[in-house]
Amino acid sequence: MNIVELIRKKRFGGALAEAEFRFLLNGYVDGRVPDYQMSAFLMACCFREMSDEEALTFVDVMLRSGEVLDLSDIPGVKVDKHSTGGVGDKVSLILAPIVASCGVLVPMISGRGLGHTGGTLDKLESIPGFRTNLSIPEYKQVLRKTGLVMIGQTEEIAPADKKLYALRDVTGTVECIPLIAGSIMSKKLAEGIDALVLDVKYGRGAFMQQEQEARRLAETLVRIGTYFGKETMAFLTDMNQPLGIAIGNWLEVVESMECLLGRRGEEDASNDLMNLAHALAGAMLMLGKRASSIEEGEEMSREAIRSGAAYRKFLELVEMQGGDVGAIENLENYPLSKHTIDVRIGEGGFITAIDPLELGFAAIMLGAGRQKVDDRIDPKAGILLRKKEGDRVEDHEVVATFFTDREDIIDAARSRIANSFQVGTTPSAQRPLIHSLIDKAGARPWR
Amino acid sequence: MNIVELIRKKRFGGALAEAEFRFLLNGYVDGRVPDYQMSAFLMACCFREMSDEEALTFVDVMLRSGEVLDLSDIPGVKVDKHSTGGVGDKVSLILAPIVASCGVLVPMISGRGLGHTGGTLDKLESIPGFRTNLSIPEYKQVLRKTGLVMIGQTEEIAPADKKLYALRDVTGTVECIPLIAGSIMSKKLAEGIDALVLDVKYGRGAFMQQEQEARRLAETLVRIGTYFGKETMAFLTDMNQPLGIAIGNWLEVVESMECLLGRRGEEDASNDLMNLAHALAGAMLMLGKRASSIEEGEEMSREAIRSGAAYRKFLELVEMQGGDVGAIENLENYPLSKHTIDVRIGEGGFITAIDPLELGFAAIMLGAGRQKVDDRIDPKAGILLRKKEGDRVEDHEVVATFFTDREDIIDAARSRIANSFQVGTTPSAQRPLIHSLIDKAGARPWR
Repeated sequence: MNIVELIRKKRFGGALAEAEFRFLLNGYVDGRVPDYQMSAFLMACCFREMSDEEALTFVDVMLRSGEVLDLSDIPGVKVDKHSTGGVGDKVSLILAPIVASCGVLVPMISGRGLGHTGGTLDKLESIPGFRTNLSIPEYKQVLRKTGLVMIGQTEEIAPADKKLYALRDVTGTVECIPLIAGSIMSKKLAEGIDALVLDVKYGRGAFMQQEQEARRLAETLVRIGTYFGKETMAFLTDMNQPLGIAIGNWLEVVESMECLLGRRGEEDASNDLMNLAHALAGAMLMLGKRASSIEEGEEMSREAIRSGAAYRKFLELVEMQGGDVGAIENLENYPLSKHTIDVRIGEGGFITAIDPLELGFAAIMLGAGRQKVDDRIDPKAGILLRKKEGDRVEDHEVVATFFTDREDIIDAARSRIANSFQVGTTPSAQRPLIHSLIDKAGARPWR
Repeated sequence: MNIVELIRKKRFGGALAEAEFRFLLNGYVDGRVPDYQMSAFLMACCFREMSDEEALTFVDVMLRSGEVLDLSDIPGVKVDKHSTGGVGDKVSLILAPIVASCGVLVPMISGRGLGHTGGTLDKLESIPGFRTNLSIPEYKQVLRKTGLVMIGQTEEIAPADKKLYALRDVTGTVECIPLIAGSIMSKKLAEGIDALVLDVKYGRGAFMQQEQEARRLAETLVRIGTYFGKETMAFLTDMNQPLGIAIGNWLEVVESMECLLGRRGEEDASNDLMNLAHALAGAMLMLGKRASSIEEGEEMSREAIRSGAAYRKFLELVEMQGGDVGAIENLENYPLSKHTIDVRIGEGGFITAIDPLELGFAAIMLGAGRQKVDDRIDPKAGILLRKKEGDRVEDHEVVATFFTDREDIIDAARSRIANSFQVGTTPSAQRPLIHSLIDKAGARPWR
């Protein structure tokens, strides 16, 4: 088999067979296929549709490039959630302990921040001592004991995806439905789950700008999951303003803990976050056979907050993964940033838009994310929103507060954050947070 | 400027500005842009049109990545020819001395074999001692004294093209009109010529299969040449069977010498080769102001054969570039291949097709071309056609003879060559060799 012939086949619209994908992807993992040939292939994939069959083959080969975990010796149904990424999206920190506390096992493999979005791993690692790099035996041990485990992609799991993902990031080939779908599903199918709930985001702060593209991705993901025998359900959700109030790793842990404690998320600005968390948790509980409908699952989810069971489950997870439980129980003792800066708007009115993309990049400036692969994250850095879309503001009122140790970027960050807020004389029409739900039976509107 | 942003710009259909091309291409030459980013960019170029302006900018930046030769201190009009490549295409060896012997200077920078096609440099180097790697001062010296010089691309000329060309070859990005045009024209414009004649081939043995694609390339080349102030004319020519009778480096030199000596090319199977050589030479003589029309130039070209002036000019060139003139004057003294094998067909009839692509690959098997970049060429190896399209053949008649030192591939080569010939009961309709002519005034049919 000849690599150039495979690149040309894709370039001219052909479909690769399983043996060809194996030659290409396994060759890439072991170094026989160089980066420059793989990147040409990836770019060709961005212009050529993959047939359903080809997309499934691609996932299958990626999946089998590493170890496929077998969790069948751990009793219970295992369900995971995956989000395509957004700003202020700390849903996993809240929903995973909720679902586990209701008796469905959650073996979760998460990623780091990418582009302007945050990553669950970076958030968890802001908890002192928390280890996300467990070995496979440790991973299984924590899941068996806690019903919940949260780690990063290991060397064993889908190594082809790990290498491709890094290459896509530097070659302009991130936005491509079959590549995105292959990346997500190869990792998730390797985890050993029984079912999967997907949060596919669209809008200014998502990787897919248009609802229609997000829908195509969601349909592809559901088709792949179903083919591999996993019940799969996707929520199409709006990412045109940040979720909740916090952007930045430790700040998001704090917001999540306040939500798990029931102190936030009902009538305040974390309401969108909790509505989404309950809906996704409801679906996971239904797929995990603990609830007969999403609605019943949502009720169980709310009860897990009220009873404190979800919060206790999170403490248990922190302890099991080496984290400092005291830091979670005494959130106020965490080190402070050198600078705490309020951002004010000019003339008052109604907040008509809050740009999540700009705020995501602003948070990176503050130290909350990486500009280069090997940058270190400042876990304390980030932004707290004081106002959200639809809120009334007075002239010169504070709309956000940010936290950073970097003195030199304060002015730039202040104006970037201020410019993310749009103020008008009338409130803009409300958009639904959850647009629709897609499963193997098709798409239907959410309520 | 950010490389990923430039790749994405092209991917999503944007046009790069001059500064962006400079950043990308000069960065590639000096190593700041890695191969894997450039190959993603090149693949995106294969799917996105370049505007006329962008294509011109691309050529200009490639051209200026190295030295632009100034030949203005050498008196006389300088005209070159470029062919997009075919099988058995030894036109340059014949036409360059013809044109130079008629008083138009020919500073020719040629390439090596690529894919299934042969290269002028490899053919010249089959002449013992012939040096194609002259320095720039030597190049000018030979041109000044002989009116003719034939070398390979130097380090100084269009280094961005040199590096891109090698990358395109291994990343499936060869067929792409703006990239092909940029590659050809950046080299030709750097040579210091006043005018250029192009032989743009289409068909089974060409890189462009369809006449329509070849026409688009020809139009782009003419537009670029004209923009840079060089009179440019393109011939669209058929490459659905090999040109002349010889395929393989020394075999092609021999056929060329017999044509230059007037011993072949009138009423025999080298007729197509010579008709094309005279037409292209006619155009070069017209652009070089020695003839008032192509027809008059063609007559001068035929006379240069009859008088022996073209042949003597070639001997002069060989001598000036260190070649063994005795080897040309005594063609029969050249070393012989270990094996000389006749290829016969089964049932007789009329030859209806001779596949140049298959014959090109067969010649590589025999040793006449490279399978890998660093393979050594056997100059003696190759194929002589005994029959051409339209010829009558008897049952089991010899249609070709091949020459090789490689014993192990004889059977495979024999059947590959035999299968390249199609035999029918009636001759197929004749195709014109020269389809049309394109210059800045537009396209017109050839005669």
